[in-house]
Amino acid sequence: MDITMIEAAAARLAGHARRTPLLSSPFLDAVAGRRVLVKPECLQHTGSFKFRGAWSALTALPAGTRGVIAFSSGNHAQGVAHAARRLGLAAVIVMPSDAPALKIDNTRAFGAEVVLYDRVEESREEIGARIAAERGLVLVKPYDEPQVIAGQGTIGLEIAEDCARLGIAAADVLVPCGGGGMTAGIALALQARAPGLRVRPCEPEGFDDAARSLVAGRRVANAQAAGSICDAIVTAMPGELTFPVMARLCGPGIAVSDDEALAAMRAAALRLKILAEPGGAVALAAALSHPVAFEPDRPVIAVVSGGNADPAMIARALAG
Amino acid sequence: MDITMIEAAAARLAGHARRTPLLSSPFLDAVAGRRVLVKPECLQHTGSFKFRGAWSALTALPAGTRGVIAFSSGNHAQGVAHAARRLGLAAVIVMPSDAPALKIDNTRAFGAEVVLYDRVEESREEIGARIAAERGLVLVKPYDEPQVIAGQGTIGLEIAEDCARLGIAAADVLVPCGGGGMTAGIALALQARAPGLRVRPCEPEGFDDAARSLVAGRRVANAQAAGSICDAIVTAMPGELTFPVMARLCGPGIAVSDDEALAAMRAAALRLKILAEPGGAVALAAALSHPVAFEPDRPVIAVVSGGNADPAMIARALAG
Repeated sequence: MDITMIEAAAARLAGHARRTPLLSSPFLDAVAGRRVLVKPECLQHTGSFKFRGAWSALTALPAGTRGVIAFSSGNHAQGVAHAARRLGLAAVIVMPSDAPALKIDNTRAFGAEVVLYDRVEESREEIGARIAAERGLVLVKPYDEPQVIAGQGTIGLEIAEDCARLGIAAADVLVPCGGGGMTAGIALALQARAPGLRVRPCEPEGFDDAARSLVAGRRVANAQAAGSICDAIVTAMPGELTFPVMARLCGPGIAVSDDEALAAMRAAALRLKILAEPGGAVALAAALSHPVAFEPDRPVIAVVSGGNADPAMIARALAG
Repeated sequence: MDITMIEAAAARLAGHARRTPLLSSPFLDAVAGRRVLVKPECLQHTGSFKFRGAWSALTALPAGTRGVIAFSSGNHAQGVAHAARRLGLAAVIVMPSDAPALKIDNTRAFGAEVVLYDRVEESREEIGARIAAERGLVLVKPYDEPQVIAGQGTIGLEIAEDCARLGIAAADVLVPCGGGGMTAGIALALQARAPGLRVRPCEPEGFDDAARSLVAGRRVANAQAAGSICDAIVTAMPGELTFPVMARLCGPGIAVSDDEALAAMRAAALRLKILAEPGGAVALAAALSHPVAFEPDRPVIAVVSGGNADPAMIARALAG
């Protein structure tokens, strides 16, 4: 994985993924005590950055590929489903039967065949391997896949380009971090195109495996597997491919509380007029609630990675 | 007012106003029964398109201008205040003392001096004229002002450019219409740059002065002055400058109910991840709820003109 792969992914995404802007508000700057720029990937197709990696991966498949299969209960599912439909590929998404009905419905509406499994009784890997073999489908992993990392890295190319235009040569780039595909991709892009910009992974408290892995110098897992409202970015540990990139290029991680994520969702809604989901808001939460994590007067760019929250969660955030 | 003025305004706005994208969702297309593209001016600085007209007007003032004054309880206030601060001009905004506290606070936070008046006991025109004379300030009208219309017209230039790229040569462009500054500006821009695109003004039921004026061939007023949740676009009648442009260039108006506006706010939030205010959502409401108003299979471009709704109104829309 290098800048050449990311540039190639950007060429394949051109005219298909949305080129998101950088948003700002003097109100957010005042709260953070520094300049805050927001990269709203919630405005991306399917409501999250995952469409970039899915499109990148699917357009890099060998000619003659029949279709793809993915495991996901959320944003990766929708990204793969939408990209597959637009490319005329079959898509099977293996989802837990207790996934939110809305996410199952959306994935079907994007044209995918959804196969439900019982989290307790069944293995999604076995189900997926069987279907893939029967139908000749290719597995698209959510983050530990070079072409997915390259696709997410196109966010970094856009940040580098916009910061050059704005005259920003040094800043922290705050990235919501699950398995680390977006974190690693952006870090690789910035290393090549804006080396004064440093990526900082942001996670929920109690699920800060990336931050602790960076401190430990090796991949360490979370003690718990569930229990955060930031479901979109809860993973067991950083990826095998993503962690070495993060260890080489990223600054210290930052962990935020659920209440800080909700406050960031509210600020994004009222000040920027964008909807974030809790996991998508953790980087903005770090910018607004953890000022001591940053050097004085250094601007921050916060990626809002997704907006697929249900109405009840949005209402909870707005209630403040 | 002509395309030359709009192009000149676009040159002055370049690098200062946000270049908003066109958003879409297969879910909205399915509801509307046609292709729907959304121009999210809620993402503009200060949360509404009004910043464009304000910046255009303030950058066209003669050298040596001390400052500006405006009457507004809402989006024009914030647009003028923010543009004035960034240009180093003094700004006085005359606001009713019963305006929402949030809007008064925001206008002050954008750096303007707010002068409150009593709607019942005092005349805002007299107060404004006195302050303007005492301090040498220039009045910036909200819509019946050529440079404001030219600034709003830059939205039309962007729509024309994006539709050319997408291969859309014929479509209806749905515009939330108050006094008609944005409606007239976009219509002038499209006449010159995309003549197959036709503007349709959209208004709340009971406040459809533009639609009825277009039918009557002369400016007619609304029977009532208040009572819609779409406060941002409730005006007594179309402007003196804006109506002749609308009469010459725009197709029939469309009126939507409050419930339709709320449903469009919900759809914008859940499907596009953007926040609209009720008045800002009337064009999207027309697209989603009034299919018979349009020719079959003809795409529509709906401008979401602003997103400055308070949390209670957003919660009401999300509750569905």
